[in-house]
Formats: sequence, C-alpha cells, structure tokens
Amino acid sequence: MILPEPIQRLIEAFSKLPGIGPKTASRLSFYLLRSSEDLARELGEALYGLRSGTAFCQTCFNITVSGRQECEVCTSTDRDGSVICVVEEPLDVLALERTSGYSGKYHVLHGVLSPIEGVSPEDLKISELLDRVGEGEIREVILATNPSLEGDATAMYLSQKLQSLGVKTTRLARGLPVGGDLEYADPNTLLRALAGRHEMN
Amino acid sequence: MILPEPIQRLIEAFSKLPGIGPKTASRLSFYLLRSSEDLARELGEALYGLRSGTAFCQTCFNITVSGRQECEVCTSTDRDGSVICVVEEPLDVLALERTSGYSGKYHVLHGVLSPIEGVSPEDLKISELLDRVGEGEIREVILATNPSLEGDATAMYLSQKLQSLGVKTTRLARGLPVGGDLEYADPNTLLRALAGRHEMN
Repeated sequence: MILPEPIQRLIEAFSKLPGIGPKTASRLSFYLLRSSEDLARELGEALYGLRSGTAFCQTCFNITVSGRQECEVCTSTDRDGSVICVVEEPLDVLALERTSGYSGKYHVLHGVLSPIEGVSPEDLKISELLDRVGEGEIREVILATNPSLEGDATAMYLSQKLQSLGVKTTRLARGLPVGGDLEYADPNTLLRALAGRHEMN
Repeated sequence: MILPEPIQRLIEAFSKLPGIGPKTASRLSFYLLRSSEDLARELGEALYGLRSGTAFCQTCFNITVSGRQECEVCTSTDRDGSVICVVEEPLDVLALERTSGYSGKYHVLHGVLSPIEGVSPEDLKISELLDRVGEGEIREVILATNPSLEGDATAMYLSQKLQSLGVKTTRLARGLPVGGDLEYADPNTLLRALAGRHEMN
C-alpha cells in the first residue's frame, strides 16, 4: 500500500528538517491530519510569513522585523557600543540575552569556518565585522563561537585578524557547567576546568 | 530582547506538534530561516495540500486520496474480504502493510476508548465496524489495537459486541519482541511470553 501523495509529500518535507527522521516525520504528518484543520493552517501561514516578515540587521546580522535597517540591540541607546560579542547564529544571541548579563552589542557570523563543508571566511559575515571594528569605536571583541573544533578555529582566525587592528579579543571561559557533576564531565572539559582553575579569595 | 513576530509565530506553531518542545521548535524555525527559501515553501505547500488532497475511505476509514470513495485496500480484488483487522490509527495500517504478511482488509477506529480523556464508543468508528460485520460476509475480526491499557480495554469492548454478532474475534499475540533480549524485557512482557508459551515440534 502506498500512502496518498499529499501525506507522502508532507512526510518528505518534514524529513528534511534537522533531527527529524522518517518515523517522526510520519508521526507529525498523521498528527496534523487528525488534529483540527487550524493547526496545519497555522503552521503553513507561519512558514509563509517567515521569510516575508523577517530580515537581517544590516549592522550585526541578527534577525529583525522586515523593513527595519537595524535590530533592537543595535538601535538601543542603553547598550554599550564599545563591546561586540561575536556568535555563530541568531539563536546564540537569544541564549546570551537570556542571561541578562551582557549589555554590549552583537555580531552574527551565520556559520563557522569549516574546510570540510567548504565554508571559507568569505561565506561568513567576517569582513563586515572587521569593518565595524575598523571604524575605531570598539574596545573589546568577545569571541563567543561554540566550544567546538570549528568554533575554536574560527575564533583563532578572527583573533589574529582583530589583533592586527589593535582591538582586545577575549574568548568565553571553558570549564564545568554550573550544576554539573564532576563524575560525569568528559575528560576534555575536566582538563579545561583544571587548566583554568583560579585562586579562591 | 524579543524575537521578531514571524519567527515567534513559527516557533509557537511548531511547539504545538507532539514531541516538539520550545527548544526543538526554535531550532527548526531558525534552521528554516537560514536554509534555502524552497524548504519553507515546500513544507508550507505540503501542509496546505494535506487536507484538500486527502480523505477518509468511507468503508474502512483509512486515509486515501480525496475524491475517492474507497481506499486502495478496500477496492483491491486481491485482498481477502472476509477478514478485517481493526487498528487505532492509519499509521498502524502502514505498519501492518510493511510486514507483507496480511492480505485481509482493515478498519481504522481513529482512537481508543478512554474514559479519562472522554473518548466514548460514539467518538470512534465502532458502529461503522459493527455495520460492516453485520452485513454477514466477515469470518474473522483481528483486534490489533495497541497492547496498552486503553488498547486492551477497547479490544475487550469490541470483542463482546462482535461475539454477539457471531463472528470470530482474535487478538495479536503478546510476547518477546523478535531480536529482543530476555534480560531487558519488562516483567509484564515476560509474564505474557511465559503464559503464551507453545510446544515446539
């Protein structure tokens, strides 16, 4: 028995999303089929509205409402314009904002350097970052790319470029996660936590 | 910082799907934002086409292409019309078809009896099943609802109704899953496997 084409098509579309395999895709599709028509329409409309309703900030490349040149953070006068935090994705901005512990500005690279996947500096918003820093009002650039191989390599690359511009570059601390358990920490994290140990006052 | 409304809307719509929490929903939304526009459009179109392109078979209530009265299984002349396999959901039909070991027809209940969730016999396709059996050409009804509390209760209820119509009712066997490990089987499954043991020839 072959599934009717419309549901087959939806299953295939769902399967293209990250972390959704064919089983989850068919579960979601059949759920939508069974649930009220509103839910499928709601999701469909939200998908259509996604591209038309959003744009990227022309300064930091974070996501913003379409029609605006700059995002909320860039236009805010409450934020410290002399510090830029460089992240990989807009979701990372959200994570940092949730801490309520950062009051500077951002710069979203939209990816990381990855020779394997063919991502070179020109594919990221790197020249735009260097332009921003080159304008001279930046005191510190916090490199907050992910603590992964690619994230580290990208931070290293940016650090070299930025230091030649004479700006201070920092990297987020590595160590044990808060609330974590020493016993379950992987050896690399533990090694980093050891290396980064600090005196108690 | 509040997210732009279009992406917030998409995250909320995704969150309403089963098994998708707010974190996965935002990951999917940002993935769609970053990926080619085609993917979001493809998914959107598939969602719109889902309801307009599908219908339920008027005999067994399995899903079929819209405009048709009956599904492929019901119209097929190769299938044994004297056996009906009763399942909860269209996905269960798919699972049984994948075995290539069943050549009878189906009946999809679209749920299970559940007093807690307020699902009574009138909410399921039970009277339609009794009508089909009442027409007299049915030899056996296989009750293939899930091996859960609700599935068992529904099978029990159906069995009583069907036996008064004089039709043979059977239930799928319970026991150890093929390729499973005795050591990891839960006590209930093991108990069922013991009770259902059969002589080797």
